[in-house]
Amino acid sequence: MGDTQALLARRERLLGKNTSIFYETPVHLVRGEGVWLWDADGKRYLDCYNNVPHVGHCHPYVVDAICRQASMLNTHTRYLHEGILNYVERLLGYFDDSLDAAILTCTGSEANDIALRMAQAVTGKTGVIATNFTYHGNTTAVSQLSTRMPPVGGYGGHVRHVPAPDSYRPLGGTSGDVFAAAFTAEVEKAIKSLEESGHGFSALIIDPFFANEGFPDLPKGFLTGAAEAVRKAGGLLIADEVQPGFGRTGDNMWGHQHAGIVPDVVTLGKPMGNGHPIAGVVAGSDTLNAFRKAFRYFNTFGGNPVSCAAGMAVLDVLEQEKLMANAKYVGKYAKDGLLRLAEKHSVIGNVRGSGLFFGAELVLDREEKTPAPEIATRLINEMRKRGVLMGKLGIHQCATKIRPPMPFTTENADLLIGTLDDVLTAL
Amino acid sequence: MGDTQALLARRERLLGKNTSIFYETPVHLVRGEGVWLWDADGKRYLDCYNNVPHVGHCHPYVVDAICRQASMLNTHTRYLHEGILNYVERLLGYFDDSLDAAILTCTGSEANDIALRMAQAVTGKTGVIATNFTYHGNTTAVSQLSTRMPPVGGYGGHVRHVPAPDSYRPLGGTSGDVFAAAFTAEVEKAIKSLEESGHGFSALIIDPFFANEGFPDLPKGFLTGAAEAVRKAGGLLIADEVQPGFGRTGDNMWGHQHAGIVPDVVTLGKPMGNGHPIAGVVAGSDTLNAFRKAFRYFNTFGGNPVSCAAGMAVLDVLEQEKLMANAKYVGKYAKDGLLRLAEKHSVIGNVRGSGLFFGAELVLDREEKTPAPEIATRLINEMRKRGVLMGKLGIHQCATKIRPPMPFTTENADLLIGTLDDVLTAL
Repeated sequence: MGDTQALLARRERLLGKNTSIFYETPVHLVRGEGVWLWDADGKRYLDCYNNVPHVGHCHPYVVDAICRQASMLNTHTRYLHEGILNYVERLLGYFDDSLDAAILTCTGSEANDIALRMAQAVTGKTGVIATNFTYHGNTTAVSQLSTRMPPVGGYGGHVRHVPAPDSYRPLGGTSGDVFAAAFTAEVEKAIKSLEESGHGFSALIIDPFFANEGFPDLPKGFLTGAAEAVRKAGGLLIADEVQPGFGRTGDNMWGHQHAGIVPDVVTLGKPMGNGHPIAGVVAGSDTLNAFRKAFRYFNTFGGNPVSCAAGMAVLDVLEQEKLMANAKYVGKYAKDGLLRLAEKHSVIGNVRGSGLFFGAELVLDREEKTPAPEIATRLINEMRKRGVLMGKLGIHQCATKIRPPMPFTTENADLLIGTLDDVLTAL
Repeated sequence: MGDTQALLARRERLLGKNTSIFYETPVHLVRGEGVWLWDADGKRYLDCYNNVPHVGHCHPYVVDAICRQASMLNTHTRYLHEGILNYVERLLGYFDDSLDAAILTCTGSEANDIALRMAQAVTGKTGVIATNFTYHGNTTAVSQLSTRMPPVGGYGGHVRHVPAPDSYRPLGGTSGDVFAAAFTAEVEKAIKSLEESGHGFSALIIDPFFANEGFPDLPKGFLTGAAEAVRKAGGLLIADEVQPGFGRTGDNMWGHQHAGIVPDVVTLGKPMGNGHPIAGVVAGSDTLNAFRKAFRYFNTFGGNPVSCAAGMAVLDVLEQEKLMANAKYVGKYAKDGLLRLAEKHSVIGNVRGSGLFFGAELVLDREEKTPAPEIATRLINEMRKRGVLMGKLGIHQCATKIRPPMPFTTENADLLIGTLDDVLTAL
């Protein structure tokens, strides 16, 4: 604890106040391997939170690929190099044929910053629609999509927010069709509002899995109407795959495939390089070329040989270790465990998710579905004490954020569910 | 050549049209070591261009640091880790005491995107002044500073451009005092214009070495008046050190020290991790905290343990191999070589620079100083054929861009100067 206080003080001095940190007693990590993390005292934690180390912390195959390429060459894309071509070609193989070109960046924020400009280049308009409890990144332009904090100088007026879907409290009632129609109607209203403003409508940007909004269980075809409304109005559909991408949902490589839609632009981030800073934008070549014509773009580190080697290694491990199938199997196993816990603990109002992004929404009472964010906070802090790392998120900040590295096993799930049971019993 | 054409076609298909690339016959690189690069045919090139591999391509000490940390742990800053604290503490030791805190990012673009918001947070205003031939990065917000291409939806109206200093054709004449006063007057005029607009004045952002603008040889104290005008108006002075930083000018660690000013905010990028994507913003803690209070900011990859290990290793090598002193000695040696070439080749109108950022401005005639951008283009393509990689830049696009890795030797300089002599003779 003395160590923790000293580190926190040093951190505030060197990195500033209000830097975000996890847990009442933050964790001082020193080592990672697979789904495990160790702190400075040698205490082991089961990582049920981190999707960045997608194929497992410090996966030796990925580390080797990075080391080999870093020893060989690391330059930029103004020279020719096969690494970026081989990687992009391989990556595009996981997408619909209409999504046939890519730009590589370093962060998901940079990717979304480009995606918004792609929509501007194609449509000549600047208005954007996002959901009202979302997060797409930290650049000046992209942070205008967040509802959390009004920027200095105010919002640009070119963003409209539609209510994020909440499958536990569906707009319009419990019927899937009505729920979807209500979302479509909100998108249509926002399009109209942008068209009536001077901005015009350029794009709807969504995480098709709505991870930050609480990963609702959406009926099949939920987004079809909204996608049609976007196309009818001449806008682009941007799918932010930073959270659900790379097989996390277990049944598909991408969240938009899980949702049954084909976007015009797809943005990738966090899990792409297993922690190495690589991200990207995938689009149809016409869309991509429109962007490249309207805005000159060059990213010094984007698509460098080491980043591409890291990205390629992640795809190799995903395939070799059949991690998408693992996500499906273990995800269902763990979700079933949560459903059993729900029979015992009334604080669990709803269990949902897909693959290795699943969780429970905590409520004060099941009748009124009153959100229990304070209980969620106590829960994750108790879990941390007992050696299981997880978070919370969602519209009401009372859903558990369980999103472990992809090699998560049924034994890991047993430990998670068992510890959750103990903590919920003791709460 | 067949290989080159095939790679170019593949590149256009996968990465889009209008992707920027160097040389009439692009170079297909496969290996790098120190100041040397090799193409797929085994041909060796002297790298006189790349500042990203700051301490030399694939420096084994930096590669080792990356591999060791990548094998150990790579998470984000919402957990405690000593790597970022040790690195930031070490880094801040190279700055004035007033610059005592930092935020780490992945790219210089992200750093400048933050710097602009720091100025907004401190001043409550949004107007920015930049020079008219500059480049500070590729995000939506930062690209508004560039004059190269009007963005879709137009410029925000909050940017004023002042003429970049041109020491070869100084505004107001050849006297240093008058030259500086003319620049100060332009800055004062731009401040007034922003104050009269609704935007107000938040910051002047400059590369204190004016690298992209053609690295003018500025008289001592050139920027003092402009810095005073900025402070008097309550604005912030942002120094973009992506080009001159980390000892490149030979006499100082930072371009702003070379220029004799203390900025309020400093942004870092390219050379920081020897190619690993790490960048950052250094500021006084009050400024940094104002930003953190006004804008929530978290960067998933920013300041991760591997990036910090790369950054620390670069500082180690800089010190151990005395690379700043090397830049000073070899830079002067090479510049003297260029001055000798100028006696022989009248196309060289002006020789200037500092440390390992030096070069010649090419002109059609020395009387009129008529820029010779086409000759510069032919020159760099001929140099490439003869195995020396360099570029061109500047207000008139006729200055050579010579900015080699820091372990550049006098022998390397001899090869550069000798080859330049041959090419200029043959042109």
